[in-house]
Amino acid sequence: MKYELYYWPEIQGRGEFVRLALEEAGADYVDVARSKRGMSEMMKMMVARGGTPPFAPPFLKAGKLVIGQTANILLHLGSRHGLAPKAEGGRMWVHQLQLTVADLVDEIHDTHHPLGPTLYYEDQRAPARRRTDEFWKERVPRYLGYFEQLVENSGGAYVTGRRLTYVDLSLFQIVEGLRYAFPKRMKAFEGEVPRLVELHGRIAARPNIKAYLESDRRIPFNDQGIFRHYKELDS
Amino acid sequence: MKYELYYWPEIQGRGEFVRLALEEAGADYVDVARSKRGMSEMMKMMVARGGTPPFAPPFLKAGKLVIGQTANILLHLGSRHGLAPKAEGGRMWVHQLQLTVADLVDEIHDTHHPLGPTLYYEDQRAPARRRTDEFWKERVPRYLGYFEQLVENSGGAYVTGRRLTYVDLSLFQIVEGLRYAFPKRMKAFEGEVPRLVELHGRIAARPNIKAYLESDRRIPFNDQGIFRHYKELDS
Repeated sequence: MKYELYYWPEIQGRGEFVRLALEEAGADYVDVARSKRGMSEMMKMMVARGGTPPFAPPFLKAGKLVIGQTANILLHLGSRHGLAPKAEGGRMWVHQLQLTVADLVDEIHDTHHPLGPTLYYEDQRAPARRRTDEFWKERVPRYLGYFEQLVENSGGAYVTGRRLTYVDLSLFQIVEGLRYAFPKRMKAFEGEVPRLVELHGRIAARPNIKAYLESDRRIPFNDQGIFRHYKELDS
Repeated sequence: MKYELYYWPEIQGRGEFVRLALEEAGADYVDVARSKRGMSEMMKMMVARGGTPPFAPPFLKAGKLVIGQTANILLHLGSRHGLAPKAEGGRMWVHQLQLTVADLVDEIHDTHHPLGPTLYYEDQRAPARRRTDEFWKERVPRYLGYFEQLVENSGGAYVTGRRLTYVDLSLFQIVEGLRYAFPKRMKAFEGEVPRLVELHGRIAARPNIKAYLESDRRIPFNDQGIFRHYKELDS
Protein backbone atom coordinates (compact mmCIF):
# COMPACT_ATOMS: atom_id res chain seq x y z
CA MET A 1 0.00 0.00 0.00
CA LYS A 2 1.22 3.46 -0.91
CA TYR A 3 0.47 6.19 1.62
CA GLU A 4 -0.77 9.54 0.35
CA LEU A 5 0.42 12.50 2.40
CA TYR A 6 -1.50 15.75 1.98
CA TYR A 7 0.24 18.91 3.11
CA TRP A 8 1.13 22.38 1.86
CA PRO A 9 3.75 21.82 -0.83
CA GLU A 10 6.06 24.74 -0.08
CA ILE A 11 6.81 24.40 3.63
CA GLN A 12 8.05 21.85 6.11
CA GLY A 13 5.46 22.95 8.66
CA ARG A 14 3.56 20.37 10.66
CA GLY A 15 3.73 17.95 7.75
CA GLU A 16 7.45 17.56 8.33
CA PHE A 17 6.89 15.52 11.49
CA VAL A 18 4.98 13.04 9.36
CA ARG A 19 7.51 13.10 6.53
CA LEU A 20 10.34 12.27 8.95
CA ALA A 21 8.46 9.23 10.25
CA LEU A 22 7.62 7.99 6.74
CA GLU A 23 11.24 8.46 5.65
CA GLU A 24 12.76 6.75 8.69
CA ALA A 25 10.36 3.83 8.17
CA GLY A 26 11.27 3.60 4.50
CA ALA A 27 7.55 3.69 3.77
CA ASP A 28 6.18 3.98 0.28
CA TYR A 29 4.42 7.34 0.05
CA VAL A 30 3.60 10.20 -2.25
CA ASP A 31 3.60 13.84 -1.13
CA VAL A 32 0.42 14.57 -3.07
CA ALA A 33 0.26 18.35 -3.10
CA ARG A 34 3.79 18.61 -4.50
CA SER A 35 2.69 16.89 -7.69
CA LYS A 36 0.88 18.50 -10.61
CA ARG A 37 -2.80 19.04 -9.71
CA GLY A 38 -1.99 17.80 -6.21
CA MET A 39 -3.06 21.04 -4.53
CA SER A 40 -6.51 20.91 -6.06
CA GLU A 41 -6.86 17.27 -4.98
CA MET A 42 -5.95 18.30 -1.44
CA MET A 43 -8.41 21.18 -1.37
CA LYS A 44 -11.16 18.92 -2.72
CA MET A 45 -10.70 16.54 0.23
CA MET A 46 -11.13 19.40 2.67
CA VAL A 47 -14.50 20.53 1.36
CA ALA A 48 -16.90 19.93 4.17
CA ARG A 49 -20.14 19.02 2.33
CA GLY A 50 -20.62 15.39 3.27
CA GLY A 51 -18.37 12.79 4.80
CA THR A 52 -15.60 13.28 7.32
CA PRO A 53 -13.30 15.97 5.97
CA PRO A 54 -10.21 16.99 7.94
CA PHE A 55 -10.13 20.53 9.34
CA ALA A 56 -6.65 21.24 7.98
CA PRO A 57 -3.55 19.56 6.56
CA PRO A 58 -1.58 17.47 7.21
CA PHE A 59 -3.68 14.38 6.63
CA LEU A 60 -2.71 10.94 5.47
CA LYS A 61 -4.59 8.52 3.28
CA ALA A 62 -3.75 5.00 4.43
CA GLY A 63 -5.84 2.57 2.42
CA LYS A 64 -9.43 3.51 3.16
CA LEU A 65 -8.57 5.60 6.24
CA VAL A 66 -8.08 9.35 6.00
CA ILE A 67 -6.30 10.46 9.16
CA GLY A 68 -5.92 14.08 10.20
CA GLN A 69 -3.97 15.87 12.95
CA THR A 70 -0.20 15.33 13.04
CA ALA A 71 -0.04 13.44 16.34
CA ASN A 72 -2.93 11.20 15.30
CA ILE A 73 -1.15 10.31 12.05
CA LEU A 74 2.00 9.46 13.98
CA LEU A 75 0.01 7.34 16.42
CA HIS A 76 -1.19 5.33 13.43
CA LEU A 77 2.20 5.09 11.71
CA GLY A 78 4.09 4.37 14.93
CA SER A 79 2.48 1.04 15.60
CA ARG A 80 2.67 -0.05 11.96
CA HIS A 81 6.34 0.72 11.43
CA GLY A 82 7.98 -0.09 14.74
CA LEU A 83 8.29 3.59 15.67
CA ALA A 84 6.44 3.21 18.96
CA PRO A 85 6.17 0.61 21.72
CA LYS A 86 3.61 -2.15 21.16
CA ALA A 87 2.17 -2.25 24.69
CA GLU A 88 -0.71 0.11 25.42
CA GLY A 89 1.06 2.02 28.19
CA GLY A 90 4.13 2.73 26.06
CA ARG A 91 2.08 3.59 23.02
CA MET A 92 0.02 6.14 24.94
CA TRP A 93 3.11 7.58 26.62
CA VAL A 94 4.75 8.26 23.27
CA HIS A 95 1.52 9.78 21.96
CA GLN A 96 1.32 11.96 25.06
CA LEU A 97 4.85 13.21 24.40
CA GLN A 98 3.99 13.93 20.78
CA LEU A 99 1.03 16.02 21.95
CA THR A 100 3.42 17.94 24.17
CA VAL A 101 5.67 18.50 21.13
CA ALA A 102 2.55 19.76 19.31
CA ASP A 103 1.94 22.29 22.09
CA LEU A 104 5.54 23.45 21.76
CA VAL A 105 5.14 23.77 17.98
CA ASP A 106 2.07 25.98 18.52
CA GLU A 107 4.07 28.21 20.82
CA ILE A 108 6.93 28.41 18.31
CA HIS A 109 4.45 29.48 15.65
CA ASP A 110 3.04 32.13 17.97
CA THR A 111 6.45 33.78 18.41
CA HIS A 112 5.98 35.33 14.97
CA HIS A 113 2.15 35.34 15.00
CA PRO A 114 1.05 36.39 18.50
CA LEU A 115 -1.97 38.30 17.20
CA GLY A 116 -3.33 35.39 15.22
CA PRO A 117 -2.62 33.14 12.26
CA THR A 118 -4.48 35.15 9.63
CA LEU A 119 -2.56 38.44 10.01
CA TYR A 120 0.82 39.17 8.40
CA TYR A 121 3.99 39.06 10.46
CA GLU A 122 4.69 42.62 9.35
CA ASP A 123 1.55 43.75 11.16
CA GLN A 124 2.61 42.28 14.48
CA ARG A 125 6.34 42.86 14.80
CA ALA A 126 6.33 44.55 18.19
CA PRO A 127 4.09 41.94 19.90
CA ALA A 128 6.18 39.24 18.19
CA ARG A 129 9.29 40.57 19.93
CA ARG A 130 7.59 40.47 23.31
CA ARG A 131 6.19 37.01 22.76
CA THR A 132 9.58 35.74 21.55
CA ASP A 133 11.32 37.13 24.64
CA GLU A 134 8.81 35.37 26.89
CA PHE A 135 9.18 32.20 24.85
CA TRP A 136 12.95 32.03 25.27
CA LYS A 137 12.91 33.13 28.89
CA GLU A 138 10.13 30.88 30.18
CA ARG A 139 8.95 28.33 27.66
CA VAL A 140 12.05 26.96 25.93
CA PRO A 141 13.75 26.08 29.24
CA ARG A 142 10.53 24.45 30.46
CA TYR A 143 9.81 22.36 27.34
CA LEU A 144 13.35 21.44 26.33
CA GLY A 145 14.36 20.93 29.96
CA TYR A 146 11.49 18.46 30.25
CA PHE A 147 12.57 16.41 27.24
CA GLU A 148 16.22 16.59 28.35
CA GLN A 149 15.19 15.13 31.68
CA LEU A 150 13.23 12.36 29.98
CA VAL A 151 16.29 11.28 27.97
CA GLU A 152 18.22 11.17 31.23
CA ASN A 153 15.42 9.23 32.96
CA SER A 154 15.22 6.71 30.12
CA GLY A 155 18.81 5.63 30.58
CA GLY A 156 19.06 5.06 26.84
CA ALA A 157 19.98 7.08 23.78
CA TYR A 158 16.36 8.00 23.06
CA VAL A 159 13.49 9.62 24.93
CA THR A 160 11.87 6.34 25.86
CA GLY A 161 15.01 4.24 26.23
CA ARG A 162 17.13 2.26 23.83
CA ARG A 163 14.65 2.22 20.96
CA LEU A 164 13.90 5.04 18.58
CA THR A 165 10.31 6.34 18.42
CA TYR A 166 8.66 8.99 16.28
CA VAL A 167 9.00 11.45 19.16
CA ASP A 168 12.78 11.35 18.76
CA LEU A 169 12.37 12.27 15.10
CA SER A 170 10.14 15.18 16.09
CA LEU A 171 12.66 16.40 18.67
CA PHE A 172 15.33 16.32 15.96
CA GLN A 173 13.10 18.65 13.95
CA ILE A 174 12.57 20.96 16.94
CA VAL A 175 16.33 21.36 17.47
CA GLU A 176 16.93 21.76 13.74
CA GLY A 177 14.15 24.33 13.44
CA LEU A 178 15.16 26.38 16.48
CA ARG A 179 18.72 26.50 15.12
CA TYR A 180 17.40 27.84 11.82
CA ALA A 181 14.96 30.36 13.29
CA PHE A 182 17.00 31.60 16.26
CA PRO A 183 20.67 30.76 15.60
CA LYS A 184 22.07 33.10 18.27
CA ARG A 185 19.56 32.33 20.99
CA MET A 186 19.76 28.60 20.34
CA LYS A 187 23.56 28.61 20.37
CA ALA A 188 23.51 30.29 23.76
CA PHE A 189 20.95 27.80 25.07
CA GLU A 190 22.22 24.46 23.80
CA GLY A 191 24.59 23.93 26.72
CA GLU A 192 21.51 23.47 28.91
CA VAL A 193 20.29 20.44 26.94
CA PRO A 194 23.33 18.36 25.97
CA ARG A 195 21.34 15.13 25.66
CA LEU A 196 18.91 16.65 23.20
CA VAL A 197 21.78 18.01 21.15
CA GLU A 198 23.31 14.53 21.05
CA LEU A 199 19.94 13.04 20.17
CA HIS A 200 19.68 15.49 17.28
CA GLY A 201 23.05 14.40 15.94
CA ARG A 202 22.19 10.75 16.31
CA ILE A 203 18.98 11.14 14.31
CA ALA A 204 20.69 13.20 11.60
CA ALA A 205 23.18 10.37 11.09
CA ARG A 206 20.62 7.62 10.61
CA PRO A 207 20.92 6.38 7.03
CA ASN A 208 17.30 6.97 5.95
CA ILE A 209 17.15 10.40 7.57
CA LYS A 210 20.53 11.41 6.19
CA ALA A 211 19.49 10.42 2.68
CA TYR A 212 16.21 12.28 3.09
CA LEU A 213 17.84 15.48 4.33
CA GLU A 214 20.15 15.45 1.31
CA SER A 215 17.31 14.82 -1.14
CA ASP A 216 15.02 17.35 -2.76
CA ARG A 217 12.13 15.75 -0.91
CA ARG A 218 13.29 17.84 2.08
CA ILE A 219 11.90 21.32 1.52
CA PRO A 220 14.35 23.97 2.79
CA PHE A 221 13.35 26.12 5.76
CA ASN A 222 11.87 29.42 4.58
CA ASP A 223 9.85 32.38 5.83
CA GLN A 224 6.44 30.73 5.48
CA GLY A 225 6.64 27.77 7.85
CA ILE A 226 6.55 27.24 11.60
CA PHE A 227 10.24 28.01 11.97
CA ARG A 228 11.07 31.42 10.53
CA HIS A 229 14.23 33.41 10.80
CA TYR A 230 13.61 37.07 11.53
CA LYS A 231 16.83 38.76 12.59
CA GLU A 232 15.06 41.14 14.97
CA LEU A 233 13.60 38.22 16.93
CA ASP A 234 17.00 36.59 17.44
CA SER A 235 18.81 39.02 19.70
CA MET B 1 -11.31 0.77 39.85
CA LYS B 2 -11.47 4.39 40.92
CA TYR B 3 -9.93 6.91 38.53
CA GLU B 4 -7.77 9.66 39.94
CA LEU B 5 -8.02 12.94 38.03
CA TYR B 6 -5.24 15.46 38.59
CA TYR B 7 -5.96 19.04 37.64
CA TRP B 8 -5.79 22.56 39.02
CA PRO B 9 -8.46 22.67 41.70
CA GLU B 10 -9.82 26.17 41.12
CA ILE B 11 -10.61 26.24 37.40
CA GLN B 12 -12.53 24.28 34.82
CA GLY B 13 -9.70 24.68 32.30
CA ARG B 14 -8.63 21.76 30.16
CA GLY B 15 -9.52 19.37 32.98
CA GLU B 16 -13.20 20.11 32.40
CA PHE B 17 -13.24 18.14 29.14
CA VAL B 18 -12.16 15.10 31.14
CA ARG B 19 -14.59 15.80 33.99
CA LEU B 20 -17.51 15.94 31.56
CA ALA B 21 -16.60 12.55 30.10
CA LEU B 22 -16.19 10.96 33.53
CA GLU B 23 -19.51 12.42 34.68
CA GLU B 24 -21.45 11.38 31.57
CA ALA B 25 -20.02 7.86 31.94
CA GLY B 26 -20.98 7.75 35.61
CA ALA B 27 -17.40 6.69 36.31
CA ASP B 28 -16.02 6.40 39.79
CA TYR B 29 -13.36 9.09 40.17
CA VAL B 30 -11.76 11.46 42.60
CA ASP B 31 -10.68 14.99 41.66
CA VAL B 32 -7.45 14.66 43.60
CA ALA B 33 -6.18 18.23 43.79
CA ARG B 34 -9.48 19.45 45.23
CA SER B 35 -8.94 17.35 48.34
CA LYS B 36 -6.76 18.22 51.31
CA ARG B 37 -3.08 17.71 50.43
CA GLY B 38 -4.20 16.90 46.87
CA MET B 39 -2.22 19.75 45.32
CA SER B 40 1.03 18.55 46.82
CA GLU B 41 0.31 15.02 45.56
CA MET B 42 -0.24 16.42 42.09
CA MET B 43 2.95 18.45 42.13
CA LYS B 44 4.90 15.44 43.34
CA MET B 45 3.80 13.42 40.32
CA MET B 46 5.07 16.12 37.97
CA VAL B 47 8.60 16.16 39.33
CA ALA B 48 10.74 15.00 36.46
CA ARG B 49 13.54 13.11 38.25
CA GLY B 50 12.96 9.53 37.15
CA GLY B 51 10.04 7.78 35.51
CA THR B 52 7.56 9.17 33.03
CA PRO B 53 6.14 12.36 34.53
CA PRO B 54 3.50 14.35 32.64
CA PHE B 55 4.47 17.81 31.40
CA ALA B 56 1.35 19.45 32.82
CA PRO B 57 -2.12 18.71 34.20
CA PRO B 58 -4.62 17.31 33.44
CA PHE B 59 -3.50 13.74 33.86
CA LEU B 60 -5.45 10.66 34.87
CA LYS B 61 -4.40 7.70 36.94
CA ALA B 62 -6.23 4.63 35.63
CA GLY B 63 -4.95 1.63 37.54
CA LYS B 64 -1.24 1.50 36.79
CA LEU B 65 -1.42 3.88 33.83
CA VAL B 66 -0.80 7.59 34.24
CA ILE B 67 -2.14 9.31 31.14
CA GLY B 68 -1.42 12.93 30.28
CA GLN B 69 -2.77 15.34 27.64
CA THR B 70 -6.51 15.94 27.54
CA ALA B 71 -7.20 14.34 24.16
CA ASN B 72 -5.11 11.31 25.06
CA ILE B 73 -7.08 10.83 28.28
CA LEU B 74 -10.35 11.04 26.34
CA LEU B 75 -9.04 8.53 23.78
CA HIS B 76 -8.52 6.14 26.68
CA LEU B 77 -11.84 6.82 28.42
CA GLY B 78 -13.81 6.85 25.16
CA SER B 79 -13.25 3.22 24.33
CA ARG B 80 -13.78 2.06 27.92
CA HIS B 81 -17.06 3.85 28.52
CA GLY B 82 -18.83 3.72 25.17
CA LEU B 83 -18.07 7.37 24.43
CA ALA B 84 -16.37 6.62 21.10
CA PRO B 85 -16.87 4.17 18.23
CA LYS B 86 -15.23 0.77 18.64
CA ALA B 87 -13.86 0.39 15.10
CA GLU B 88 -10.41 1.84 14.47
CA GLY B 89 -11.50 4.31 11.81
CA GLY B 90 -14.25 5.80 13.96
CA ARG B 91 -12.07 5.88 17.04
CA MET B 92 -9.33 7.80 15.23
CA TRP B 93 -11.86 10.14 13.64
CA VAL B 94 -13.26 11.13 17.03
CA HIS B 95 -9.72 11.56 18.39
CA GLN B 96 -8.87 13.73 15.40
CA LEU B 97 -11.89 15.93 16.12
CA GLN B 98 -10.88 16.20 19.77
CA LEU B 99 -7.42 17.37 18.68
CA THR B 100 -9.13 20.03 16.57
CA VAL B 101 -11.12 21.07 19.65
CA ALA B 102 -7.79 21.27 21.51
CA ASP B 103 -6.44 23.64 18.83
CA LEU B 104 -9.54 25.79 19.24
CA VAL B 105 -9.08 25.80 23.02
CA ASP B 106 -5.50 27.04 22.57
CA GLU B 107 -6.75 29.86 20.39
CA ILE B 108 -9.45 30.77 22.92
CA HIS B 109 -6.78 30.95 25.62
CA ASP B 110 -4.63 33.17 23.41
CA THR B 111 -7.39 35.77 23.06
CA HIS B 112 -6.51 36.95 26.56
CA HIS B 113 -2.87 35.84 26.51
CA PRO B 114 -1.47 36.67 23.06
CA LEU B 115 1.97 37.54 24.43
CA GLY B 116 2.40 34.27 26.27
CA PRO B 117 1.05 32.21 29.13
CA THR B 118 3.41 33.45 31.84
CA LEU B 119 2.52 37.18 31.61
CA TYR B 120 -0.50 38.79 33.26
CA TYR B 121 -3.55 39.71 31.22
CA GLU B 122 -3.18 43.25 32.52
CA ASP B 123 0.17 43.50 30.74
CA GLN B 124 -1.26 42.55 27.34
CA ARG B 125 -4.64 44.22 27.09
CA ALA B 126 -4.10 46.00 23.78
CA PRO B 127 -2.73 42.93 21.94
CA ALA B 128 -5.54 40.89 23.53
CA ARG B 129 -8.10 43.15 21.88
CA ARG B 130 -6.49 42.72 18.48
CA ARG B 131 -6.19 38.98 18.86
CA THR B 132 -9.80 38.72 20.04
CA ASP B 133 -11.02 40.70 17.03
CA GLU B 134 -9.14 38.38 14.68
CA PHE B 135 -10.44 35.36 16.58
CA TRP B 136 -14.07 36.34 16.17
CA LYS B 137 -13.70 37.54 12.62
CA GLU B 138 -11.69 34.63 11.21
CA ARG B 139 -11.33 31.74 13.59
CA VAL B 140 -14.70 31.26 15.28
CA PRO B 141 -16.56 31.07 11.93
CA ARG B 142 -13.96 28.62 10.63
CA TYR B 143 -13.91 26.27 13.64
CA LEU B 144 -17.57 26.38 14.64
CA GLY B 145 -18.63 26.37 10.99
CA TYR B 146 -16.63 23.18 10.57
CA PHE B 147 -18.30 21.40 13.49
CA GLU B 148 -21.73 22.71 12.42
CA GLN B 149 -21.14 21.16 9.01
CA LEU B 150 -20.11 17.86 10.57
CA VAL B 151 -23.36 17.63 12.55
CA GLU B 152 -25.21 18.24 9.30
CA ASN B 153 -23.09 15.65 7.47
CA SER B 154 -23.64 13.06 10.19
CA GLY B 155 -27.40 13.10 9.70
CA GLY B 156 -27.83 12.45 13.42
CA ALA B 157 -28.14 14.50 16.56
CA TYR B 158 -24.42 14.29 17.31
CA VAL B 159 -21.19 15.07 15.49
CA THR B 160 -20.59 11.50 14.38
CA GLY B 161 -24.21 10.46 13.95
CA ARG B 162 -26.82 9.06 16.27
CA ARG B 163 -24.50 8.17 19.12
CA LEU B 164 -22.97 10.53 21.63
CA THR B 165 -19.17 10.71 21.81
CA TYR B 166 -16.82 12.64 24.06
CA VAL B 167 -16.40 15.25 21.30
CA ASP B 168 -20.04 16.23 21.72
CA LEU B 169 -19.40 16.83 25.42
CA SER B 170 -16.41 19.00 24.55
CA LEU B 171 -18.45 21.02 22.05
CA PHE B 172 -21.04 21.61 24.76
CA GLN B 173 -18.24 23.07 26.87
CA ILE B 174 -17.03 25.26 23.98
CA VAL B 175 -20.49 26.78 23.50
CA GLU B 176 -20.98 27.16 27.26
CA GLY B 177 -17.55 28.79 27.64
CA LEU B 178 -17.91 31.18 24.72
CA ARG B 179 -21.29 32.27 26.11
CA TYR B 180 -19.66 33.02 29.45
CA ALA B 181 -16.58 34.78 28.07
CA PHE B 182 -18.13 36.69 25.19
CA PRO B 183 -21.90 36.94 25.83
CA LYS B 184 -22.52 39.72 23.28
CA ARG B 185 -20.33 38.35 20.51
CA MET B 186 -21.64 34.83 20.98
CA LYS B 187 -25.26 35.96 20.98
CA ALA B 188 -24.68 37.70 17.67
CA PHE B 189 -22.97 34.64 16.24
CA GLU B 190 -25.18 31.77 17.36
CA GLY B 191 -27.57 32.09 14.43
CA GLU B 192 -24.73 30.83 12.21
CA VAL B 193 -24.48 27.50 14.02
CA PRO B 194 -28.02 26.37 14.91
CA ARG B 195 -27.08 22.68 15.05
CA LEU B 196 -24.30 23.31 17.57
CA VAL B 197 -26.66 25.36 19.71
CA GLU B 198 -29.14 22.47 19.65
CA LEU B 199 -26.37 20.02 20.45
CA HIS B 200 -25.42 22.16 23.45
CA GLY B 201 -28.98 22.04 24.76
CA ARG B 202 -29.23 18.31 24.20
CA ILE B 203 -26.06 17.67 26.21
CA ALA B 204 -27.10 20.02 29.01
CA ALA B 205 -30.31 18.01 29.42
CA ARG B 206 -28.67 14.61 29.74
CA PRO B 207 -29.36 13.34 33.28
CA ASN B 208 -25.75 12.79 34.35
CA ILE B 209 -24.57 16.09 32.89
CA LYS B 210 -27.52 17.99 34.34
CA ALA B 211 -26.83 16.57 37.80
CA TYR B 212 -23.14 17.40 37.45
CA LEU B 213 -23.76 21.00 36.37
CA GLU B 214 -26.01 21.50 39.40
CA SER B 215 -23.49 19.97 41.81
CA ASP B 216 -20.56 21.62 43.52
CA ARG B 217 -18.26 19.33 41.56
CA ARG B 218 -18.75 21.80 38.69
CA ILE B 219 -16.38 24.70 39.39
CA PRO B 220 -17.93 28.02 38.26
CA PHE B 221 -16.32 29.91 35.39
CA ASN B 222 -13.97 32.58 36.71
CA ASP B 223 -11.14 34.85 35.59
CA GLN B 224 -8.38 32.26 35.84
CA GLY B 225 -9.41 29.61 33.33
CA ILE B 226 -9.47 29.24 29.56
CA PHE B 227 -12.78 31.09 29.25
CA ARG B 228 -12.56 34.53 30.86
CA HIS B 229 -15.00 37.36 30.70
CA TYR B 230 -13.33 40.71 30.14
CA LYS B 231 -15.90 43.32 29.18
CA GLU B 232 -13.49 45.16 26.91
CA LEU B 233 -12.95 42.05 24.80
CA ASP B 234 -16.67 41.52 24.24
CA SER B 235 -17.64 44.48 22.09
